[in-house]
Amino acid sequence: MSWITFIDLAGTLVFAISGITAGIKKDFDLIGTLVLGIVTAVGGGTLRDLLIGSLPVGWLTTDVYIYVIFLALPISYLFSRSLLRLRRSLFLMDTIGIALFTVLGAQKTLDAGLSPAVAVMLGSVSAVFGGVIRDVLANVEPLIFRREIYATACVMGGIVYVSLLKIAVDPAIAMICAMVVIVVVRYISIRYNWGLNIKAKHHEKK
Amino acid sequence: MSWITFIDLAGTLVFAISGITAGIKKDFDLIGTLVLGIVTAVGGGTLRDLLIGSLPVGWLTTDVYIYVIFLALPISYLFSRSLLRLRRSLFLMDTIGIALFTVLGAQKTLDAGLSPAVAVMLGSVSAVFGGVIRDVLANVEPLIFRREIYATACVMGGIVYVSLLKIAVDPAIAMICAMVVIVVVRYISIRYNWGLNIKAKHHEKK
Amino acid sequence: MSWITFIDLAGTLVFAISGITAGIKKDFDLIGTLVLGIVTAVGGGTLRDLLIGSLPVGWLTTDVYIYVIFLALPISYLFSRSLLRLRRSLFLMDTIGIALFTVLGAQKTLDAGLSPAVAVMLGSVSAVFGGVIRDVLANVEPLIFRREIYATACVMGGIVYVSLLKIAVDPAIAMICAMVVIVVVRYISIRYNWGLNIKAKHHEKK
Repeated sequence: MSWITFIDLAGTLVFAISGITAGIKKDFDLIGTLVLGIVTAVGGGTLRDLLIGSLPVGWLTTDVYIYVIFLALPISYLFSRSLLRLRRSLFLMDTIGIALFTVLGAQKTLDAGLSPAVAVMLGSVSAVFGGVIRDVLANVEPLIFRREIYATACVMGGIVYVSLLKIAVDPAIAMICAMVVIVVVRYISIRYNWGLNIKAKHHEKK
Repeated sequence: MSWITFIDLAGTLVFAISGITAGIKKDFDLIGTLVLGIVTAVGGGTLRDLLIGSLPVGWLTTDVYIYVIFLALPISYLFSRSLLRLRRSLFLMDTIGIALFTVLGAQKTLDAGLSPAVAVMLGSVSAVFGGVIRDVLANVEPLIFRREIYATACVMGGIVYVSLLKIAVDPAIAMICAMVVIVVVRYISIRYNWGLNIKAKHHEKK
Repeated sequence: MSWITFIDLAGTLVFAISGITAGIKKDFDLIGTLVLGIVTAVGGGTLRDLLIGSLPVGWLTTDVYIYVIFLALPISYLFSRSLLRLRRSLFLMDTIGIALFTVLGAQKTLDAGLSPAVAVMLGSVSAVFGGVIRDVLANVEPLIFRREIYATACVMGGIVYVSLLKIAVDPAIAMICAMVVIVVVRYISIRYNWGLNIKAKHHEKK
C-alpha cells in the first residue's frame, strides 16, 4: 500500500468519524449517523466526480471505502472519550487528509481535460464539500461558511499545485509542496485564530 | 402491464402524494408542492442513477412518471379527507413500493457492474432518499434519521436479495423473498414500535 | 459575441450578485459568499446537465463563467448602495436572464433526445434551481416554494417554446416569443401582486 493510499484511507476514516460524531450529538439513530458518516467521508469526491462526469463515482467501484466507513462506526461509539483525548492527532490526520483530497481532486479534474482554474475549485470541493453536505443533512448552517481558513487553505494549496505543474515541476514534488502549504496555512490560522469564530470550532473537537 | 410496472407506478403515486401532502402542510404554493412531489417520488432513483452513471436518469426517458406525479396533485388536494381514511391501504402500497424500489435499485446497480455491498446500499438509497430530499427542501430534519426501521428494512431486504442471487436462486424468486422480508420487517417494527419515535410517525399518516 | 452569449453572461452576473448578497446578509465569510454566488449562478444548469447526462457540466468546460462570478464579488461588496438604486435594471436583467436560461435549458434537453414535457420541466429547473440551492445552503426555506409566479412564468414560457417548435416555427422566433411570455408574465404578476407574498420579495431587492 502506497503512502497515498494510506493517507486517503486514513483521511476517509477521520472524515467518517467526524460525520458519525455529528450524528450522535444530534441523537440520530444508527442509520442516520451512518449516512452522515458516509456523506462526510465521500460527499466531496462524489460531487467532483458527478460534475466532471467520472461515473460511476470512484468510491463505489471498490468496497474498501465502505469498509473503512463501517469501521468508523464502532470507533465513534465505543471510543468517544478516547477520541477526545486523541483530538490533536485526529486534527493532524484530518488536515493531512484534506490536503491530500485537494491535490488528488485537482489532478483528477486536470485528467478529465478541464482547466487549472476549475482544478483548483474542484480540488477544494473534494476536500470540503463532504462537511457542507453533512451540515445540510443535519439541518445546521454549513460551518464552512463561517470558517474561511479551512477552505482558503485548500484553494491556496490547489493554486500552488497547478502553478508548479505549469512550470514543469515533477508532479510528486508539486503534490508534496501543495500539501505542506495546506497543512501549514491551516495550523498557522488556528494558532493565530485567523478568520475563526471561537464558537464555531466544533469540527476540530471531534 | 406487468405487476412490476404496476407496483412501480403505484409506489411512485403514493410517494408523490406523500411529498405533495408535506408541501400543503407547509403552506407551499402549487409549484412548491409539485416540486416536493417530484423529488419525493423520483429523488431516490435519481441519486442512484447519478452515482452509477446511468444517464439521462431513468424517469426522464419516458413521460409516464411525470403524468403519475401530476395525477397525484388533484388527488392530494381534493381527497385529503378520504386519504386519511385510506391511510392503511396507502401505507401498505407505500411499503410494497419501498420494497420494489429497493430490489429494482439493487439489480440496476449490479447491472452497472458494481459490487453486492454497493447494490444493497444503492437499493436502499433508491427507496428512502426521495423522502430525505423532501425533508431537506422543506427545511425540516430528515425523518429517516430518527426512524431507523424504515431504512433498516430496506438494507435487510437488499442483503437477502444479493445473497439469494449469490447462491444462484432464480432472480424472480429472490426478488419476491426480498420484498416479503422488507414488508414483514416494516410491519412487525410498526406493530412493536421498534426504533420508532411516536412523534415522528408523520410519514405513515399521509 | 452574440446577443445570446451576452444575455447568458449578464444573467450569470446578476444571479451571482443575488447569491453573494444573500451570503453577505447572513454574515457568511468570503468563501461562503463566493460559494453561494457560484451555486446561485450555475446551480440550475448544473442540475439539468447532471440529469440529462451532459458531463462535464457545461460551465466547467470554459473559464468565462468562473471569471464572471468572481467579478460579481467586488461589485456586490463595493457597490451595494448603488445596486439598491439600480434594482429596477437588475430586476429587468434578472428576468431576461431567467427567460433565456429557460429556453436554452429546454433546447439542451431536447438536444439530448428527451421529450417536450421533460424539456419544459428541465428548462424551468435551469432557471430557478440555482435560487433553490442557494436557499438550502443558507438554511432558509426556499423562496420559490412561496412565490409561485416566478417558476410558473418559466413553465409557461417553456410550453410556448416547445409548442411553437412542434408547429415548425423557426427556432429563433420560438425562442424570442417564449422569452417575451416569461418577461411579460413576470412583470404583470409583480404589477398585480399575483401569488406574491410581500414579505417574500427579498429576491427582487438584491
